[in-house]
Amino acid sequence: MSASNITKRAISEELELLLGESLSVLDHGFIRVIDYMGNDAAIVQAARVSYGAGTKSISEDAGLINYLMMNAHTSPFEMCEIKVHVKLPIFVARQWIRHRAASVNEVSGRYSVLSKEFYLPNLVQLCYQSSHNKQGKGAELSPEQKACVLDMLRTDAEQVFAHYTTLLALQNTEQREQLTESGLTRELARINLPLSTYTEWYWKIDLHNLLHFLSLRASPHAQYEIRAYAEILFDIVKRWVPLTHAAFVNYRLEGGRFSKMALEVIRRLLAGVSVTQETSGLSKREWENLCRLLQIKI
Amino acid sequence: MSASNITKRAISEELELLLGESLSVLDHGFIRVIDYMGNDAAIVQAARVSYGAGTKSISEDAGLINYLMMNAHTSPFEMCEIKVHVKLPIFVARQWIRHRAASVNEVSGRYSVLSKEFYLPNLVQLCYQSSHNKQGKGAELSPEQKACVLDMLRTDAEQVFAHYTTLLALQNTEQREQLTESGLTRELARINLPLSTYTEWYWKIDLHNLLHFLSLRASPHAQYEIRAYAEILFDIVKRWVPLTHAAFVNYRLEGGRFSKMALEVIRRLLAGVSVTQETSGLSKREWENLCRLLQIKI
Amino acid sequence: MSASNITKRAISEELELLLGESLSVLDHGFIRVIDYMGNDAAIVQAARVSYGAGTKSISEDAGLINYLMMNAHTSPFEMCEIKVHVKLPIFVARQWIRHRAASVNEVSGRYSVLSKEFYLPNLVQLCYQSSHNKQGKGAELSPEQKACVLDMLRTDAEQVFAHYTTLLALQNTEQREQLTESGLTRELARINLPLSTYTEWYWKIDLHNLLHFLSLRASPHAQYEIRAYAEILFDIVKRWVPLTHAAFVNYRLEGGRFSKMALEVIRRLLAGVSVTQETSGLSKREWENLCRLLQIKI
Amino acid sequence: MSASNITKRAISEELELLLGESLSVLDHGFIRVIDYMGNDAAIVQAARVSYGAGTKSISEDAGLINYLMMNAHTSPFEMCEIKVHVKLPIFVARQWIRHRAASVNEVSGRYSVLSKEFYLPNLVQLCYQSSHNKQGKGAELSPEQKACVLDMLRTDAEQVFAHYTTLLALQNTEQREQLTESGLTRELARINLPLSTYTEWYWKIDLHNLLHFLSLRASPHAQYEIRAYAEILFDIVKRWVPLTHAAFVNYRLEGGRFSKMALEVIRRLLAGVSVTQETSGLSKREWENLCRLLQIKI
Repeated sequence: MSASNITKRAISEELELLLGESLSVLDHGFIRVIDYMGNDAAIVQAARVSYGAGTKSISEDAGLINYLMMNAHTSPFEMCEIKVHVKLPIFVARQWIRHRAASVNEVSGRYSVLSKEFYLPNLVQLCYQSSHNKQGKGAELSPEQKACVLDMLRTDAEQVFAHYTTLLALQNTEQREQLTESGLTRELARINLPLSTYTEWYWKIDLHNLLHFLSLRASPHAQYEIRAYAEILFDIVKRWVPLTHAAFVNYRLEGGRFSKMALEVIRRLLAGVSVTQETSGLSKREWENLCRLLQIKI
Repeated sequence: MSASNITKRAISEELELLLGESLSVLDHGFIRVIDYMGNDAAIVQAARVSYGAGTKSISEDAGLINYLMMNAHTSPFEMCEIKVHVKLPIFVARQWIRHRAASVNEVSGRYSVLSKEFYLPNLVQLCYQSSHNKQGKGAELSPEQKACVLDMLRTDAEQVFAHYTTLLALQNTEQREQLTESGLTRELARINLPLSTYTEWYWKIDLHNLLHFLSLRASPHAQYEIRAYAEILFDIVKRWVPLTHAAFVNYRLEGGRFSKMALEVIRRLLAGVSVTQETSGLSKREWENLCRLLQIKI
Repeated sequence: MSASNITKRAISEELELLLGESLSVLDHGFIRVIDYMGNDAAIVQAARVSYGAGTKSISEDAGLINYLMMNAHTSPFEMCEIKVHVKLPIFVARQWIRHRAASVNEVSGRYSVLSKEFYLPNLVQLCYQSSHNKQGKGAELSPEQKACVLDMLRTDAEQVFAHYTTLLALQNTEQREQLTESGLTRELARINLPLSTYTEWYWKIDLHNLLHFLSLRASPHAQYEIRAYAEILFDIVKRWVPLTHAAFVNYRLEGGRFSKMALEVIRRLLAGVSVTQETSGLSKREWENLCRLLQIKI
Repeated sequence: MSASNITKRAISEELELLLGESLSVLDHGFIRVIDYMGNDAAIVQAARVSYGAGTKSISEDAGLINYLMMNAHTSPFEMCEIKVHVKLPIFVARQWIRHRAASVNEVSGRYSVLSKEFYLPNLVQLCYQSSHNKQGKGAELSPEQKACVLDMLRTDAEQVFAHYTTLLALQNTEQREQLTESGLTRELARINLPLSTYTEWYWKIDLHNLLHFLSLRASPHAQYEIRAYAEILFDIVKRWVPLTHAAFVNYRLEGGRFSKMALEVIRRLLAGVSVTQETSGLSKREWENLCRLLQIKI
């Protein structure tokens, strides 16, 4: 990746600086940008196919990108593409792969012997299950509990990986003379490996679908471990297509969506009417969401 | 699922008999057909949109379906849809989910406590890694080795599941008075669970994409465990759309594809010319494939 | 379609009443529901795979569907599917086909002779191009202009169709004896046909993607002619999955999305601060959108 | 497009030479490569994620690409992407758009006034409809007929375009003072335009799906006009990824697929048994296909 090539293609100077660099995530993971296609100008160019206009100033480009994002005109954002090499725990990979509009080449545990690498959470991540949010965290465990939990996770994973090695090394005792085969099939030897085992893949996706991925996986509702990857990808997007990144933050990530009933509540509030959850007609969850977005004290 | 409803929709009488039944797969898995749309006649009907012909006889329907399958006219097969409830080990689910043209709702290990159910291979599956095929099996292990392997897999999985229970039961010792929170977050407690853990999902796919799934996963190259599911699905397709099933077997599953160079070899053979791998110009792998399909002794 | 079958599948009683009926759209078009899979309960059932709960009351079903819609949990809505037969002008079909997540079988103008049926707008649709909205309508034409426009459209289309017939009837004068071939190839004879020519297709889509289609095509920004189809589909959805329909209207169709900057404006308004477009920091378009949604007089 | 940039990304030197060039197709159409991602080496690199091997020699790369193509391991080919600007008649665009796995930005006839450009076939394309192949061509028309047909097509298209201009120029006679609106809405003025009208779009697709497009649209079964575009794209692929192109030609484009029953016929032929269509058990169409592929005289 140190080589430099000459190209007539659009480039993103900031993203070029990052190409091939391994950006660390969690304890053994990484994200590495392998390739990309397009930049902010390419989005604008595709959008302008509609009316054949020539190159415009940067400020006009920003205005058009804001317009596209605000009105969910998504197809121009599909005109950019990125390919990354990712190393990630399998339980993260299982959430990630649910995004179907992407291309993937993953290490095969049938074909290859997997490295002994598994994820152990950072101490600050060890919290009680939230009592009111089924996908949420409560208070941190006590220091003693944390030590105990980590030790249990590490010891079990070490043991399973040791047995994985044992299974792969089984000798075929009946064919002593011609030791052509040995080891349990890799496809079965790996079935006890923990979900924390690291895997690797090449992942290619267009910008529109990447933004959708980020809106779900960089959100506070996402599990910390996949969020750690999403945040790196978020920074990559910022370098790659800064105008699109800014529009995405303003119109999607930090914006808000209201239902017809919630709009009616806002109108009443603006008219000076006092509204409570009871009189709002909203569910508790939606009311809390409204108050959070509008920074109303409940 | 015992209730009977009246519908004007097309039905598949044979598949109706199976609706809601759990068909066992592996040691704890199952496939259960939840719903379906369309039948052989619906495929024919969609194909005939092109020329508006009325209902034809069964034999003409078979002819049209054969024609569609032979010429890879795939869109009419997309007009049928099936939805199944599946219980399967996570390592199988990871192969399965690579088929992107499907809809999935899976049990969430962040949201729910997972049942203590893991896959243990049947004894006959315990073989040495093939020495020449990276994804293949060699001879069976010795009986002693098999017992030893199974014991190791079972013991490790049992231990990890016991610790999973322990982690979920951690008491919050600092909030004795108001025991509102307990247990490590489910999203982390599960990370050491083995890839053999059973998961469940609803999976919905159209017939065209299901046939593609079957052509890869009911193949002898597929891992035994996913093939066990594919074979059940194969039988379901046979009941559901028997004409399509027969065409699929003839034109796809048990047919063969030859390269330009392989066609040239066949032409030489038909002309009475003797051809060996060396004089064929084919790679060893392609030559073997040719001989297998034509049942030529090498 | 008059026959009644017995099925164990979930049904939608209201939609059954409509199966096979041609619902008229525009001057010669129609939508006819051919088949469907699932209902509101099927969505709930798929969503509950996560936590294995049994059947709940209708009100709890509605609550869960509202929750799914509010939080854009889209996969359960993919578990329902509908198949319709549509007759529509080609310029409408060209907008419609941009929705890629659907299956289509269309009449082929290469294979079949197309019927002489073309769309002529209703008089009230004949308006001036809006001077400020590139996709919008202004005032209606004068009655004389309308008559003139319709006459021009009709006369030209009639002439082209007459010539289409002529081209298809060309006699092969050089093969008088064995008149096996005649007519210009259908694939070329049709190239002058107008974009208003009616075509037909079978179209199959899942409910999630149908709702996305409706959010764009039943919108006032959509061209009247495709909106006419979207409105029929909207009513079909209401019969098919009434709880989902209500949630869609409340959370999507009649709700509103605000940017981060627009949220800040609302907060200032709620705090009693006077805000104008200039002081809002919003673009003119976004400011107007905000005022419209909040029913603020500008 | 004349500018040269420095990039660390993989490049295809041959394709760089073509970037931005308009390659003529039909009478007014073109294909222009705007951007691309990846090359033959990128395909190999993605495939090798499985076993982490370093860069290999060109001949080994060719072997791996042949292997991937032969065994329909399609995901590595998805790792390359291309974006082209295309100008094409609408009836071609309607066939083209059926390939859903692509991203498109098209000129909008609602938003823009369309140029007066329509396709007129070359004289040699003017043939009789085949009497036995519903999508095929027979003998050429007589010179007089050709002249007559072309004249009819041209005259009608000219007239419709002239009326299009008339409709767009309608004056709003009632608002004489403030002539802010004029012309029938563009969205309706265009509905009589012929299917031969040229449109333009940006089209982005991955290499796997492009090869699928080519296998259907560069085939002799495709209509001449879309084949003209497919052949240009075929040459572009040859420059871009020559190893993949060669494998595609050998294993897909000029290879052949046989059914189970056809394989049985080949085996009988190889065993010296004489087989006719009657004794083959094959349909007439399949028998002809077999004879053509094996160059057997019927």
